[in-house]
Amino acid sequence: MNLREILSGISPLDQETYEKAKRRTEDLLMPYLALGRLHEISWQIAGITGRFPEALPHKAIMVGAGDHGVVEEGVSLYPQEVTRQMIFSFLKGWAAINVLADHVGARVIVVDFGIKGPVDPLWLEAKDRFYPMKVKEGTNNITKGPAMTPDEAEKVILRGFEVFQKEFEKGLDMIGTGDMGIGNTTASACVICAITGFDPEEIVGRGTGLDDEALRKKIQVVQKALEINKPDPEDPIDVLHKVGGLEIGGLTGWILGGARARIPVVIDGFISTASALLAVKMEPKVKDYLIAGHLSAERGHKKALEYLGLRPLLDLQMRLGEGTGACLAFEIVEAAIKILSKMPSFEEAGVSRAK
Amino acid sequence: MNLREILSGISPLDQETYEKAKRRTEDLLMPYLALGRLHEISWQIAGITGRFPEALPHKAIMVGAGDHGVVEEGVSLYPQEVTRQMIFSFLKGWAAINVLADHVGARVIVVDFGIKGPVDPLWLEAKDRFYPMKVKEGTNNITKGPAMTPDEAEKVILRGFEVFQKEFEKGLDMIGTGDMGIGNTTASACVICAITGFDPEEIVGRGTGLDDEALRKKIQVVQKALEINKPDPEDPIDVLHKVGGLEIGGLTGWILGGARARIPVVIDGFISTASALLAVKMEPKVKDYLIAGHLSAERGHKKALEYLGLRPLLDLQMRLGEGTGACLAFEIVEAAIKILSKMPSFEEAGVSRAK
Repeated sequence: MNLREILSGISPLDQETYEKAKRRTEDLLMPYLALGRLHEISWQIAGITGRFPEALPHKAIMVGAGDHGVVEEGVSLYPQEVTRQMIFSFLKGWAAINVLADHVGARVIVVDFGIKGPVDPLWLEAKDRFYPMKVKEGTNNITKGPAMTPDEAEKVILRGFEVFQKEFEKGLDMIGTGDMGIGNTTASACVICAITGFDPEEIVGRGTGLDDEALRKKIQVVQKALEINKPDPEDPIDVLHKVGGLEIGGLTGWILGGARARIPVVIDGFISTASALLAVKMEPKVKDYLIAGHLSAERGHKKALEYLGLRPLLDLQMRLGEGTGACLAFEIVEAAIKILSKMPSFEEAGVSRAK
Repeated sequence: MNLREILSGISPLDQETYEKAKRRTEDLLMPYLALGRLHEISWQIAGITGRFPEALPHKAIMVGAGDHGVVEEGVSLYPQEVTRQMIFSFLKGWAAINVLADHVGARVIVVDFGIKGPVDPLWLEAKDRFYPMKVKEGTNNITKGPAMTPDEAEKVILRGFEVFQKEFEKGLDMIGTGDMGIGNTTASACVICAITGFDPEEIVGRGTGLDDEALRKKIQVVQKALEINKPDPEDPIDVLHKVGGLEIGGLTGWILGGARARIPVVIDGFISTASALLAVKMEPKVKDYLIAGHLSAERGHKKALEYLGLRPLLDLQMRLGEGTGACLAFEIVEAAIKILSKMPSFEEAGVSRAK
């Protein structure tokens, strides 16, 4: 399937089921809409799935990984080899996302979209949860030219979509987006600034913990990458290939896959939101399938979510990535749908209504 | 056990285990403290329990119920009989708290601390989850005099403590506080204003959904109750007996029980926070055992939590009570402790650290 075919398969929410969910909620055994955002989420899920599901048993966090040539500019506290090392940790079950996914009953899928160096044979042993989808061994340094070619940008999105399809065939009721890539808050900031027009000063954050001086440097790096590459805000492939990242494109493919398959897509933090901006720019209907899992502590995340018109479910000052915020939000989403599908109305319970 | 004996059994957190948890967290396989508030919660649980638990398998929401004479003043949209009717729903498993407690694997305990009218024989059939602990058939109208006698106020706290002890014997690693009582946002507003000194205008909210005119009336009712009764802010029993509620006192007993038994106490919304203010006024060490589950949409909740020095984990515009916000927060607390107890350090995982 090519990108055009994927996008043309994305439909609007099922408005009838959405409205039916809303009417049912008004009758539930509680003061009018007393569970606030839980209700909104349950209506959205009704509109996405066309039903009132009692559970979303099959859940996955896809962690897309890639490297970034821009790390040459000193934008991260961690050495580039950490991207590789973390893949091993994800597959061993050692990372934060493994612990949290276990806690909420989700599986963790790890995809190499563009890690520097060859695929480690050990990774391939984890066949059920690792996909070798490398398009390129890390992006080029975006302060000197484009991150990748336009063809590579399109290819990495299609590979993300392909992974989604394979996982969807195994059973998938909800997905969360996760990322791993030393340097990827820099590339994500470029994508967010390119699409939204926000100034890098408002968007670029401390990533894994830069000090003031390093943050100033990182802002200059983002400014330079945007000036040199001049990405076209109206053309998401142009933005991705010039200033994006391989895992950022992979996540975009996964998001498009979720919307096309009519399942809720819970986005994580800063990197996932850059991917979501690209997906929504390609097809605005994607937005209705998105749930913002949490507000990251990374500086520009709030503004990027507001631009998308999304309100985060959680705000726990987290800034890890890996899909950790999306994963915790799974629990809230499942709680929300149970309220709609399992509670009786006032009449059914025989309880008096408001005067 | 009398109240003095209960309070004298409440000890400070285990500072050594708290500090050990903090040091361990700094080494975990992630950027420095990248999971924000999850870490703070895990340290608190370490300090409360004196260990790094891998799970908190036995959890309960205690829903304390009571009626309020002040409903004569027209402060609620719902008729008083709804308190009774909801007990039946809680025991049948129909209420929102039942659905959410099921979702998180917690049991729901229902206690009649002071519902108007006799105990329904049907309630007693649910022996494993219902406690008849009635001290009085609803409070007196607090715009005309005290809600109850000082003896009744002390008695209802002791009954809450007694319920806690019985449940603790069955196995209990974490509790959440819940409430049911038509009119109880009015009594809670009185308690909060009495203890904190905040003006009723800042604290009184719409409860189950009052319009502007009814809200103005409710503010006047609270002002009148405070003027007529003149509760002493330094004497929690004086506050509870003059302007409180029976379930508010019952929850205070449950909170004291949790702190004394060294288990985390997750408080819910507006009513639970009034109970927590009373408990902390009795013994300031109680505060360290409290986790604010969520920020309620009820107007004064934010200020009351700030007064206590607590930051809510969730903010989902919920305003139902029953313990629903505490219940959802259980999931976050359990996620937090798993990060501390299950993740390896950088060294253990063989991953490079920050430069």
